[in-house]
Amino acid sequence: MKKKITIVENTTVITMNENRDIIENGVVVFEENKIIYVGDNKGKENFINKDNYEVEIIDGEEGILMPGMINCHTHASMVPFRSLADDYKDRLKRYLFPLEQKLVDENLTYIGAKYAIAEMLLGGVTTFCDMYYFEDEVAKASKELNMRGVLCETIVNFSAPDAKEPFGGLDYSRKFIEKWKNDSLIIPGIAPHAPYTNSDESLKEAYEISKKYNVPMTMHVAEMDYEFKECIEKHGMTPVQYLNKLGILDSNFISAHTVLVNDEDIKILKDKGVGVSHNIGANAKGAKGVAPIIKMKEEGINIGLGTDGPMSGNTLDVIGQMVQVGKIHKLFNNDRTILPSIELVEMATIGGAKVLGLDKEVGSIEVGKKADLALIETKSVNMQPIYDYYAAIVYSANASNIDTVIVDGKVVVKNKKLISGDFTEIRNNLLGLKDKINKIAKEL
Amino acid sequence: MKKKITIVENTTVITMNENRDIIENGVVVFEENKIIYVGDNKGKENFINKDNYEVEIIDGEEGILMPGMINCHTHASMVPFRSLADDYKDRLKRYLFPLEQKLVDENLTYIGAKYAIAEMLLGGVTTFCDMYYFEDEVAKASKELNMRGVLCETIVNFSAPDAKEPFGGLDYSRKFIEKWKNDSLIIPGIAPHAPYTNSDESLKEAYEISKKYNVPMTMHVAEMDYEFKECIEKHGMTPVQYLNKLGILDSNFISAHTVLVNDEDIKILKDKGVGVSHNIGANAKGAKGVAPIIKMKEEGINIGLGTDGPMSGNTLDVIGQMVQVGKIHKLFNNDRTILPSIELVEMATIGGAKVLGLDKEVGSIEVGKKADLALIETKSVNMQPIYDYYAAIVYSANASNIDTVIVDGKVVVKNKKLISGDFTEIRNNLLGLKDKINKIAKEL
Repeated sequence: MKKKITIVENTTVITMNENRDIIENGVVVFEENKIIYVGDNKGKENFINKDNYEVEIIDGEEGILMPGMINCHTHASMVPFRSLADDYKDRLKRYLFPLEQKLVDENLTYIGAKYAIAEMLLGGVTTFCDMYYFEDEVAKASKELNMRGVLCETIVNFSAPDAKEPFGGLDYSRKFIEKWKNDSLIIPGIAPHAPYTNSDESLKEAYEISKKYNVPMTMHVAEMDYEFKECIEKHGMTPVQYLNKLGILDSNFISAHTVLVNDEDIKILKDKGVGVSHNIGANAKGAKGVAPIIKMKEEGINIGLGTDGPMSGNTLDVIGQMVQVGKIHKLFNNDRTILPSIELVEMATIGGAKVLGLDKEVGSIEVGKKADLALIETKSVNMQPIYDYYAAIVYSANASNIDTVIVDGKVVVKNKKLISGDFTEIRNNLLGLKDKINKIAKEL
Repeated sequence: MKKKITIVENTTVITMNENRDIIENGVVVFEENKIIYVGDNKGKENFINKDNYEVEIIDGEEGILMPGMINCHTHASMVPFRSLADDYKDRLKRYLFPLEQKLVDENLTYIGAKYAIAEMLLGGVTTFCDMYYFEDEVAKASKELNMRGVLCETIVNFSAPDAKEPFGGLDYSRKFIEKWKNDSLIIPGIAPHAPYTNSDESLKEAYEISKKYNVPMTMHVAEMDYEFKECIEKHGMTPVQYLNKLGILDSNFISAHTVLVNDEDIKILKDKGVGVSHNIGANAKGAKGVAPIIKMKEEGINIGLGTDGPMSGNTLDVIGQMVQVGKIHKLFNNDRTILPSIELVEMATIGGAKVLGLDKEVGSIEVGKKADLALIETKSVNMQPIYDYYAAIVYSANASNIDTVIVDGKVVVKNKKLISGDFTEIRNNLLGLKDKINKIAKEL
């Protein structure tokens, strides 16, 4: 039987391999879900017109082929709430939690996740790390659209949409992890919401689950000023120090936000192998401060990028995060040379893969890795001229320039259209939720 | 003879009039280049099936119709240099000026301007304020693509691409203003580059020209740290105070950047009626600091948005500036409620029109004003749901969501395609410059 392979040709390949090789007029070949060749155009001769291969060719049309991007922190199913109460004070407690209490059910979670995943795929994101309720629904949506997901069920000290009793997410998590632990696309995990919405016991129990199954654990850490203040008052130490004292930080831990940290905290994160999801777009909109990622990077902490939920960060594409990260850190450090565009592309790809513990699988275009790819077209007016590919990705491109996306060897977006699902249906389902949400929001 | 009118229907009209009215399922009617009706769907009955009107209908397809956006500061013709030396130190003197000296001629200025204007139109910008050399070429490109331009010839104390003698732009300006002063789309002006690249005499002479013809004068003001330092050392005062002492600030003055200003400077700007172009995208990328526009706004100074040149700000769309302005000021002021999205849309439209002295003509959708309109489609995945139109424009939309653009009553962009010019030719001309630029850039 012939081997089915796919060749992506006529493209500049931004490999993000160890050498950061860029291959102009490059070719990537994958078989099933695995990359088997990355190189120049001549190398493709080994694969075409051969008896043992059945070849599909994708013409990159002189676009830029980069590793699929990685969204290290979001709450995908919140997309039905996007553009509500954006510039309001104390939004989390005044709007967001009440909206969730009144509205989030399996149906909304599924519909929201499906739309959000479509948006991520259309924006070149091929892996996302999610923290929400009813993660089974998010997994279902991910599988249907062929998205790679690190999906973590939320644990909180109050009644949650999918668990009447506080901390009900612990039970949900165990079942969820058991169910999905051997899946090819879904990496199940666990997500205690934050230090201030959990007890010592629930945090430890979540950690035990993460350790037992060797799965990711993610948490909002040192994000809120009141969280920081409360932690100092209650425990006499910073959130990071408190989590460390509980003994729950390790290399499975994905620390989201991580804004209010000092040098000692950074040292702890480094020593424990914790990865950080930097969510500057949402952090800036919420005026929460600037996580000291320059220092974290210097210490060798892995940094990935996250959009946060679409009620906080609004759009779900990672390509739009890079320029925000770069510009804001340049401003705050009064230095235009820091975080040059190559380092931003690193965070969006291989950096994120390391944060999620998936860098053996994804995050760069290399032989043996999964075929998770994003092709940026260079025909649109904003994309030319290009003297520096990293600069073009960071400073010129937006999510709408993503033309073709491949996840796990399967084409999911082609000619800027979702092909792994019916976008019209996905959109109509989302819009079907609007009236009810609007009514409840107006009562808040 | 029948009157030819155009009706834009099936759209939500963001008027940006005094009341900031939003009209859902609204209609805008214009005759030639002038708006003659703005209102609900019923009102269009007065225009259809009437003997005296020949009607063209544009279906807004449930999109958002906003005033065409205004780019208050750019150097359009620099687009051939985009993505060169982005994160380099001392870029202006080390790369930018030398590149211009070696490469800028009439041909490059024209080709660059044409491409940049295409990009602006495709991004919903309908008026731009330009500062460059060979402004005649920029005017030609503007007219060909039907773009409204405030075009200001640069004055500098060194040999310029279009004037061998220092300050040669003064003569160029006089001729340029004479030539274009009665044009329907071109508003000629004058642009002394900066306080540190001009003498007292040339600044005063430029001002006299601006006063004599009652045309705009624009300048980079208080943008650079070395400019500020040098001004204090040389003149014992800040750049704004120095310009004020020269007596050249008035309501024709468009102050670009205006980052390094204190309370006294702000008072001067207010008293003299100076408008400010806030160029945060470029200022952030260059780590130049954050202009205190919150304070300026409180004082009643008009603020518009500028992209700066595409070697500094990279993209030329104003829609992408709004979110950067909002987020960076929220962060720097530690307050998520400041600059809510409505205020950002104001700066991008009516605010910019006031800065350029064109608010009687453009900047809002009102009867009697020019038909300069931008339609944002709401079908793309990033655009839904919408509970708040201003939030959707600021936090969700990007330049690629602009579907239809009308300048001075003429459709210039339709279905995301440029129709006032041949984009393929414009693009090929730009790419034709690349090899030569690359060669020279590598020698720098």
